[in-house]
Amino acid sequence: MATAVTPPRGMRDFLPTEKARRERVLQRIRSVYRAHGFDEIETPVVEDSARLHAGLGGDNEKLAFAVMKRGLTMDALAEAATPLDLADLGLRFDLTVPLARFYASNRGQLPSVFRAIQIAPVWRAERPQKGRYRQFVQCDIDIIGEPGIIAEVELISATAAALEALGVPGCSIRVNDRRLLTAWLAAFEVPDALRPAALISMDKLDKIGLDGVVAELRAIGVARADDLFVGLHPALEGDESWRMLDHAVFAGSAAAADLRSLRAAAGEIPLVFDPFLVRGMGYYTGPIFEVAHPDVGYSLGGGGRYDGMIGRFLGTEVPACGFSLGFERLIDLVELGDEPDDGAALLYERDADLATVVALKNELVAEGARVRLLARPKNMKAALELLEAEGFTRFAVVSTDAVAEAAALDWRRLNDR
Amino acid sequence: MATAVTPPRGMRDFLPTEKARRERVLQRIRSVYRAHGFDEIETPVVEDSARLHAGLGGDNEKLAFAVMKRGLTMDALAEAATPLDLADLGLRFDLTVPLARFYASNRGQLPSVFRAIQIAPVWRAERPQKGRYRQFVQCDIDIIGEPGIIAEVELISATAAALEALGVPGCSIRVNDRRLLTAWLAAFEVPDALRPAALISMDKLDKIGLDGVVAELRAIGVARADDLFVGLHPALEGDESWRMLDHAVFAGSAAAADLRSLRAAAGEIPLVFDPFLVRGMGYYTGPIFEVAHPDVGYSLGGGGRYDGMIGRFLGTEVPACGFSLGFERLIDLVELGDEPDDGAALLYERDADLATVVALKNELVAEGARVRLLARPKNMKAALELLEAEGFTRFAVVSTDAVAEAAALDWRRLNDR
Repeated sequence: MATAVTPPRGMRDFLPTEKARRERVLQRIRSVYRAHGFDEIETPVVEDSARLHAGLGGDNEKLAFAVMKRGLTMDALAEAATPLDLADLGLRFDLTVPLARFYASNRGQLPSVFRAIQIAPVWRAERPQKGRYRQFVQCDIDIIGEPGIIAEVELISATAAALEALGVPGCSIRVNDRRLLTAWLAAFEVPDALRPAALISMDKLDKIGLDGVVAELRAIGVARADDLFVGLHPALEGDESWRMLDHAVFAGSAAAADLRSLRAAAGEIPLVFDPFLVRGMGYYTGPIFEVAHPDVGYSLGGGGRYDGMIGRFLGTEVPACGFSLGFERLIDLVELGDEPDDGAALLYERDADLATVVALKNELVAEGARVRLLARPKNMKAALELLEAEGFTRFAVVSTDAVAEAAALDWRRLNDR
Repeated sequence: MATAVTPPRGMRDFLPTEKARRERVLQRIRSVYRAHGFDEIETPVVEDSARLHAGLGGDNEKLAFAVMKRGLTMDALAEAATPLDLADLGLRFDLTVPLARFYASNRGQLPSVFRAIQIAPVWRAERPQKGRYRQFVQCDIDIIGEPGIIAEVELISATAAALEALGVPGCSIRVNDRRLLTAWLAAFEVPDALRPAALISMDKLDKIGLDGVVAELRAIGVARADDLFVGLHPALEGDESWRMLDHAVFAGSAAAADLRSLRAAAGEIPLVFDPFLVRGMGYYTGPIFEVAHPDVGYSLGGGGRYDGMIGRFLGTEVPACGFSLGFERLIDLVELGDEPDDGAALLYERDADLATVVALKNELVAEGARVRLLARPKNMKAALELLEAEGFTRFAVVSTDAVAEAAALDWRRLNDR
């Protein structure tokens, strides 16, 4: 049965070097978030199908992998009105829907302002392409129960600190507020009914450019499509961008005051006001944000306030706000320092005493080394090169007459062979 | 849409305290295994359905959660010969089938003797019951490419070291060899055809007792069922157990020599020879082992040699051997020491300056503290109790006139309020 042996389409195996790097990066993110007062939680990888398809996941709902009911009969197949009738569970497509469910399930045991870390894989059945996978890791922090802008400040501070700890400098954080977008559309007489579609078009500014967006807006029936972009030039830097908040449409609004407080409290974190930042998900209700990096054309993460969402699970309104880092987009930019690691390889002769070889290994492990046993190979050069590539730093040969004392071995550094 | 908000049946949410404990335990296991020369890898949580149902998973195959093909039409439902025709993927039910597939996929990039760590969840649609879950974590180490007993010695040493690092003392490791079981059955004239069923019955010794096993063996047609258990008394301790290996049926066999080498090299690890240890899976071919703990009636983990399995994916025989710890069974027994943690809570007045509060937080984080912000609550007592329960050690109130300097605050210990 020598079948084709690739991982499922659009999914990846991680070999030792890559896995170790991923775990180090995740550990560093986790540790920064924890220092910032967030607590890690975990939910099952599947959620009830009805919950995943409740309209909170936007387009991602269509990309969910469905898990079939157990014990299905042929009769059940015949009676199904749609294929989805045969599924009762699905793999989560984000960490926000599971968080809302988690909070509703466990609210009684959580602090009144709950700061959650979720670092976990999600699954989307997208058409695989470069840099886009069907299983990928997201790093989310969320604050549930805090209505004030201090929640946004904590999320942005923790995210900026994580990026700094990962050696990804030069990021800026673009911010906007859904309430300002609404005010802007209202000021240019875009009717309520057209606003969701108008936002979807405006969200494509980076992809299709100003002319493309204006054309789309006209096509859906926005009469003053050109006017929307006159007098405001998005993608400006720092101070200059914040002057746009003085525009008559924004001035004096609660949203503008919130964004100004946010900026003052964020200190040295470079925040850019971008009046045309939209963020895709329909559930945002207040401030929204996105991480931009000068070297890449996509955002490294984003988030915002979604005050209405928890209520849809809980039946009671609870304010909430989150920030998600796209781990797979981030990891290639990360610069980790060297990790001090005493890697010792024992190359034993095939007829060396087994108990002696094992005792030597255990002695080294007890001293804090990472130890690799290896039968002494014919091709020493290749074996030593591989050990060095795997991060081992020294080696010794264990001959048939070796004694069980590591200090008695003839140790050599791998890097000065 | 306030729906029922529990996790899917048989699956669990992990709240902060439990999640932190689980991560600490996993981190400690990971670190011991790494010191013993193993390298962590990761595979996708799903594998191709055909691969999961290739007969290597035993009864677990029936418990696999199936993932439906995307874009199914009603025609596809009508044409399906069995419900499984509608699935192309499934959630893995163990880490061994994915490892065999991983090795076949990536062999060219792996060392000739490959030591793998896999610490990851698996899924089985079992009837939920106390201590048995539908999503649970396994911690596996495997050595692929080493035919000699040194592989078993390394697996057992690393596992014993992990148990010691977790503060789970008093474990013993029961060992046997499938070749000895075969010799034993042959000596009592159990025909080839009956042996798999006979092994399944013998595996129930702990559950249904000697009389129960003998009755089952008779029922399946084993003529000398009584004789099988005369002259050998399982579950003996240490030295006494090893004397059973002198029995005429075992004496002089390669398997007996291997087990004796294993014992000699294992040093102080308490190994018990148990001639009736079977292990459930059909793929074992040589030594097998299981971790017993005096306080619990179930094994904490087990493994063995499965030389034929990789070949079924690869087309070439490759020796392999593994040891799996049942994390969910283990975690309740683990005794971790205290973790030094400077947890500082800032209780800010609602009208305190936001930028000052945030600057204070960032200063403490930079000093290495874990910092939690909290609006000063009406019920201070309850809030302080909760902070202490969450591991915070000190607190200070940030009043409206506070300055942005943490040392200027009036710090108090949470544990001597």
